Amino acid sequence: LLACKDQTSIASSLPSWHDNENSQRLFQFITDVSNTNNKLYVAPKDRIAVFDNDGTLWSEQPAYFQLLFAMDRVRALAESSPELKAQWLEQQPYKAVLENDMKALAASGEKGLIELVMASHTGNDSATSEEYAAVVTQWIKTAKHPSTGKAYTDMVFQPMLELMSLLREKDFKVYIVSGGGVDFMRPWAEQVYGVAPENVIGSSVKLEYEYRNGNPVILRRPKLNFINDKAGKPIAIHQHIGKRPILAFGNSDGDLQMLQWTDANSLPHLSAYIHHTDAEREWAYDQDSPIGQLKQGLTQAAEKNWLVVDMKKDWRKIYPNDQNQ
Amino acid sequence: LLACKDQTSIASSLPSWHDNENSQRLFQFITDVSNTNNKLYVAPKDRIAVFDNDGTLWSEQPAYFQLLFAMDRVRALAESSPELKAQWLEQQPYKAVLENDMKALAASGEKGLIELVMASHTGNDSATSEEYAAVVTQWIKTAKHPSTGKAYTDMVFQPMLELMSLLREKDFKVYIVSGGGVDFMRPWAEQVYGVAPENVIGSSVKLEYEYRNGNPVILRRPKLNFINDKAGKPIAIHQHIGKRPILAFGNSDGDLQMLQWTDANSLPHLSAYIHHTDAEREWAYDQDSPIGQLKQGLTQAAEKNWLVVDMKKDWRKIYPNDQNQ
Ligand SMILES: [Ca+2]
Ligand SMILES: [Ca+2]
Repeated sequence: LLACKDQTSIASSLPSWHDNENSQRLFQFITDVSNTNNKLYVAPKDRIAVFDNDGTLWSEQPAYFQLLFAMDRVRALAESSPELKAQWLEQQPYKAVLENDMKALAASGEKGLIELVMASHTGNDSATSEEYAAVVTQWIKTAKHPSTGKAYTDMVFQPMLELMSLLREKDFKVYIVSGGGVDFMRPWAEQVYGVAPENVIGSSVKLEYEYRNGNPVILRRPKLNFINDKAGKPIAIHQHIGKRPILAFGNSDGDLQMLQWTDANSLPHLSAYIHHTDAEREWAYDQDSPIGQLKQGLTQAAEKNWLVVDMKKDWRKIYPNDQNQ
Repeated sequence: LLACKDQTSIASSLPSWHDNENSQRLFQFITDVSNTNNKLYVAPKDRIAVFDNDGTLWSEQPAYFQLLFAMDRVRALAESSPELKAQWLEQQPYKAVLENDMKALAASGEKGLIELVMASHTGNDSATSEEYAAVVTQWIKTAKHPSTGKAYTDMVFQPMLELMSLLREKDFKVYIVSGGGVDFMRPWAEQVYGVAPENVIGSSVKLEYEYRNGNPVILRRPKLNFINDKAGKPIAIHQHIGKRPILAFGNSDGDLQMLQWTDANSLPHLSAYIHHTDAEREWAYDQDSPIGQLKQGLTQAAEKNWLVVDMKKDWRKIYPNDQNQ
């Protein structure tokens, strides 16, 4: 009888998940902690759920989508300013972008890519927070992914959308805790994920306040403020939320510390990895991938019995517009 | 009839406020923005209210309460370690605290006071976030204010407690945005103010994540990370919340930028100052006070027609245990 009841509920609340051991474990955890009569009950104020974004809520291949945004932005800025174009054609990593030289781009390393992401916001100057949000909003509305041709917001994971909806129904506070830029995610996270701006935690650049002729603005400076990755994730969770999550989802070694931090919560908790196993419907990669590397994390997940979601086996569909399987 | 209705509502929702022009303006704003039929209606997701803490939600004389905590802490740590005591008796600003020499303490300046607040957390070492929270919790339960003899949590402003309750009833998201330490406020802000840890924004120290024999901890380092004052306030609001408030309360020039930022919201909004005018029931100070200086702010409030709450004239009582006037 209980099994039947759970089956029904997975089918109605998580219809894009196959009803199997993994989805049952996840569903059981959510119902247990939100049931006042269960010994695993957790008060709503402590029902904190955190989700990595790239590779956990949407795809991240062949490059982080924010990097693809930065590249589109460099091209657009170069088109609008012959001077900037001439300057950038002499300067890596911009030259690599303008010449579509992915090998040279990769050779610029993490530092080059970060510079690209930061500088490309605005060319050489600073943008106000509102100007930047407008650029992101316009891009996310119109840009297409280079290999699928889909809109980026059509490359979010339908099973995760259902999971976040279920959690909110059960009075969880759902946060995004991503290495991506906080101001890159906020303009569309509410509409796409149902996650309000104040629940988005990410990497950030230095900001400056300026009182321009009586009109206050916040300027984004092309200088890193905080990288929300690895040990930065539990630190950002502490700075922003001030308590440990009871549920955490990630997909790479960059999420390991966030999952450890959640795993050491004295309240009932669940740490979980999304494992990219579906080369046909999405991408298959783990320990050898330069993007979303998952190596230590898989080892530790096995040792600690964390949930490891197998995208190929566990999900009926990946993207919202896919057919069920 | 309308006046009657409003009178009744101020009396029932804000009983510690005198029913006058100031409370009516405040009450009217709150009811207008939360009334779907009013042209000033604002959707719940955008009903962001921010409150400074020291001097806005509780008293701040003769010194910021967190500084009094730090001084108590220096004394307690010195008592528990003769070595530390010997060291500190040779070193300002610790020497001043141990010798109760307020003049020498003041002479150590802002830098000295910040060092005191940071180092006093833990002596010379770092504490984990949990250890620090336990120390704060114990102190706030037992410490008494040096001149009133009251518990510090009995020196919060009853009219502001009522205001925050009313705002939450009206689906506002209520935040504290304080120059005080975020980890100093969070352990008691929920119980005292009804403000959950994730809605407390403050100054912070550098944090480090450490995986101690399989037990992850977050260590507080005695090094400043962010000072949430002046231009830092709108910046922190942007980093943490990602949108402009529609209601902001402060009491000093340190809140001026936060009030400007709110005042430039394209949605209906109200910026407000608490003016300390009651030497008898609390303290009276403004432009010449080294603590909570309010000078530029008063000028700009007059120019921009911000609400200026006069504690003496507008509040029937100051502290929860006072008699009504
Ligand atoms: Ca990821
Ligand atoms: Ca203040």
